[in-house]
Amino acid sequence: MSGNIKGIFYGVSTGPGDPELMTVKAVRILKKADSIVAARVMGKQETALEIAKQAVGLDDKEILSLPFSMSGKREAEKKEHENSIRQIEALLEAGKNVAMPVLGDVSVYATWQYLAEEIQADGYQTVMIPGVTSFCAAAAAANTGLTQRDLPLHIVPASYGNLEKQMQPEGNYVLMKAGKCMDEIHRVLETKPGVREVFSIKNCGLPGEVVKDGLLENEAYGYFTTVIVKE
Amino acid sequence: MSGNIKGIFYGVSTGPGDPELMTVKAVRILKKADSIVAARVMGKQETALEIAKQAVGLDDKEILSLPFSMSGKREAEKKEHENSIRQIEALLEAGKNVAMPVLGDVSVYATWQYLAEEIQADGYQTVMIPGVTSFCAAAAAANTGLTQRDLPLHIVPASYGNLEKQMQPEGNYVLMKAGKCMDEIHRVLETKPGVREVFSIKNCGLPGEVVKDGLLENEAYGYFTTVIVKE
Repeated sequence: MSGNIKGIFYGVSTGPGDPELMTVKAVRILKKADSIVAARVMGKQETALEIAKQAVGLDDKEILSLPFSMSGKREAEKKEHENSIRQIEALLEAGKNVAMPVLGDVSVYATWQYLAEEIQADGYQTVMIPGVTSFCAAAAAANTGLTQRDLPLHIVPASYGNLEKQMQPEGNYVLMKAGKCMDEIHRVLETKPGVREVFSIKNCGLPGEVVKDGLLENEAYGYFTTVIVKE
Repeated sequence: MSGNIKGIFYGVSTGPGDPELMTVKAVRILKKADSIVAARVMGKQETALEIAKQAVGLDDKEILSLPFSMSGKREAEKKEHENSIRQIEALLEAGKNVAMPVLGDVSVYATWQYLAEEIQADGYQTVMIPGVTSFCAAAAAANTGLTQRDLPLHIVPASYGNLEKQMQPEGNYVLMKAGKCMDEIHRVLETKPGVREVFSIKNCGLPGEVVKDGLLENEAYGYFTTVIVKE
């Protein structure tokens, strides 16, 4: 490891939960990485790392466990990211290839983007390994297509509010992280015209998977709940 | 193979082109299938089968090559589908598991849905194996995220027209099959406020891949062109 050759920072999509839904490439990149970043989301979950471990032996790797507390407090999150970036860049500077397993696909609502933008700006190479999104896996679990011939598909981070407005354009909808706002989804769907089919998928590919025609009742939702709404 | 046990019809997502972007599960299902449906799209391309063949040896399999002429003429397409369904069901009836490789992900604008709905209605089991969508792979190729924190993502089948209206809601856009309507995309983007970044990705993961910041000029587009528009 020469001082001149810097490592690469990989965002490796692990898919939604089932380790068999990792791509052949994701498995290969994780196998050859020197260091693995484990995202300790909300203080405890290392879901993406757990998925990766089922597909790839990672016992011989250096594991860097970093907190992503997802508090929603921008300043605190920014400080946390800066601290994570400093630790990752120290490894890259030492010539190590660093892979961070990311739940679902790395281009869709993944915290990896915030890290990667800074790390790129600091002059390091970053590479994204695409994977299966939670919503494609949810559609497969519900045995339904997400799209119709000439209609758009809207991917909505449902828990960010303003759902009535978000669900106005024509087309089908994927409501992500729907578990946080199932009351609001119930309310919006009650008055929305043209809805033909609704599916709820909780913990897709994870232990405790639930697939339901229609909406889950409030008490049954969880953080990893996706709702599919078809016109 | 008892006369009573019917086969299963699998829609196996092959991802966008690079055979390494197939999932471990897709590879396993194709390996164990008795028969493979090759979609002969528009008279010649068997792109999904070609991807699958690079990852899995299929020489010992029965290959059923079926036409999907994509003429846009509903009646002709319907007749073609009915003919395909009849041939697939004959195999399922004989107890054979039939796998159809599908480009990208099987839940997103895949013809497989039309076949599967009928085949299910006729009493056979159908199973979807999710995969990497063309747009997630395009984002990775352009090294950019598709989403921002609290904004939706709109997946638009761009060639179906009415693009100005489709691009009104706030959020980011993926314009699929953009090659057919690059003139219109140029026109709509010229007057659309709030556009921060645009990427064009042609033949993602296939021979002749092009990744460009901004739009491709008209002469350079192709059927498999995806445009990413970020606010």
